Amino acid sequence: MEVLFYWADQAGVAVFAVAGTLLAFRKHMDGFGVIVLASATAIGGGTIRDLILGLPVFWTEDQTYIYTILGSALVTIIWLRYKAYIPMTTLQVADAIGLAFFATMGAEKALSAGFSPFIAVIMGTISACFGGMIRDVLARDVPMVLKSELYATTCIVGAIVYTLLVPFYPIVALVAGMLSTLIIRLGAIRYQWSLPVFRDNPEHY
Amino acid sequence: MEVLFYWADQAGVAVFAVAGTLLAFRKHMDGFGVIVLASATAIGGGTIRDLILGLPVFWTEDQTYIYTILGSALVTIIWLRYKAYIPMTTLQVADAIGLAFFATMGAEKALSAGFSPFIAVIMGTISACFGGMIRDVLARDVPMVLKSELYATTCIVGAIVYTLLVPFYPIVALVAGMLSTLIIRLGAIRYQWSLPVFRDNPEHY
Amino acid sequence: MEVLFYWADQAGVAVFAVAGTLLAFRKHMDGFGVIVLASATAIGGGTIRDLILGLPVFWTEDQTYIYTILGSALVTIIWLRYKAYIPMTTLQVADAIGLAFFATMGAEKALSAGFSPFIAVIMGTISACFGGMIRDVLARDVPMVLKSELYATTCIVGAIVYTLLVPFYPIVALVAGMLSTLIIRLGAIRYQWSLPVFRDNPEHY
Repeated sequence: MEVLFYWADQAGVAVFAVAGTLLAFRKHMDGFGVIVLASATAIGGGTIRDLILGLPVFWTEDQTYIYTILGSALVTIIWLRYKAYIPMTTLQVADAIGLAFFATMGAEKALSAGFSPFIAVIMGTISACFGGMIRDVLARDVPMVLKSELYATTCIVGAIVYTLLVPFYPIVALVAGMLSTLIIRLGAIRYQWSLPVFRDNPEHY
Repeated sequence: MEVLFYWADQAGVAVFAVAGTLLAFRKHMDGFGVIVLASATAIGGGTIRDLILGLPVFWTEDQTYIYTILGSALVTIIWLRYKAYIPMTTLQVADAIGLAFFATMGAEKALSAGFSPFIAVIMGTISACFGGMIRDVLARDVPMVLKSELYATTCIVGAIVYTLLVPFYPIVALVAGMLSTLIIRLGAIRYQWSLPVFRDNPEHY
Repeated sequence: MEVLFYWADQAGVAVFAVAGTLLAFRKHMDGFGVIVLASATAIGGGTIRDLILGLPVFWTEDQTYIYTILGSALVTIIWLRYKAYIPMTTLQVADAIGLAFFATMGAEKALSAGFSPFIAVIMGTISACFGGMIRDVLARDVPMVLKSELYATTCIVGAIVYTLLVPFYPIVALVAGMLSTLIIRLGAIRYQWSLPVFRDNPEHY
């Protein structure tokens, strides 16, 4: 399990680094604007999680995470030089895969540090959503977590599914947690699912 | 005293959660945009305070704070569905009450952890102002702390009043600290009090 | 060395506090908007560095840093009242000097806490760049770190030069690290040096 969790975590970092690089491309940033956005997306959420839990920040103890970010950003940059156009959905799909990895892995990290299932769900959500939130604030976009359909909701659902199943079937929990996040988020992007709470009130904006 | 401080802290969380929900309403956010803004406002400042002081983050140890946020947000949402219009000042007044609670409670937390009165005043200000600052950055508003009349000033005054009085009269310190923040802030909203430092220079914006 | 490092650190805080105050002036902020922007610029990066490294946050243990910020902001305000116009480059130059101090001092702090040279370079960059990034996000400017020529790059270069030389010649390392950051950054401002990675793609903005 340990090894599987480790690579799921690295995969999440890689996918979020790609998402950050794609946004930097859309915003015409220079070389290190790319690194800042890729890193903020990939390790921002996990850094905040570790700080709040009082754990050592994960990438200060294992530099492989940084190499993963740099490698992913480089591959994405090379790919973008040969491909003139990227549709908006590429960024959203990369982001959705990253959410799926981090919602489950963030919950796992809190559980294995001895925190309650309730805190684990919150930490899964923070790990998954806060990196993209920092990225969007830096790039001066409206944060996806605030404007997009079911964004944070999908992380909460994935983290809950994982937290409920992991005491019994760890591997099933990982797969089911990730799939539930991924399917709901992709469905929300494709079919505009949403969870309205307020009546329309455009006149009070 | 302990019990009184605890409930003052919970009351501050509740009022700030209401303020975050009101802003989410004005910005037409979906269900979990509401939770993100309500939580950022209610526990963002205290989280940064605890991280800087090196203390365990308060809401990871006592989940009641999270329930308070969810409950306050829910009540506010229900209320908003029956009331078509909220004036801007409702948000500002809720925010002012939250400032009053957190300016004193943030200073108290630093003092009881053994930090100096000077650091206590800074921590009262951070607890009170940073939650709303994160909220406004996420919602892409100009942060109230930067544009509004006497915003941070009121927290500094409340934290100073509290810190000076608490060694002698704890309850008087709490009431006087909160009232000084609240009265100055409400006066600033109502009568446009301000503390100018620069000559008008509109041409250099 | 200890004493030299301490004063280099204080000088970096002073210069960044001036940069924050200048931006607050351009944005017509009130008195405590000035303090918030000056403080965020001056100690924001170092605070994030200390949190991530798990060290006590530097200014909670030595209040001289806070006095330096308040003094620098006050001197800048007085100066601005007698001088109607400040060119944009004044802000950029103050910022560049701050970058030079913090890129080297941030790397030093990580090295002396026993972290690897690779982490030291990242921490030099975070110390130098993140304060200004927070300042720009709060003031709703596009962060210089993302839009400006060679901004983060200069910090990375300065931190690498320092980290490579410090085991052999500490004072040379300090001077060479600072000068390499300063010269590259000022050159980038003056001659528009940049490091393009993407083809021009204005049509996909």
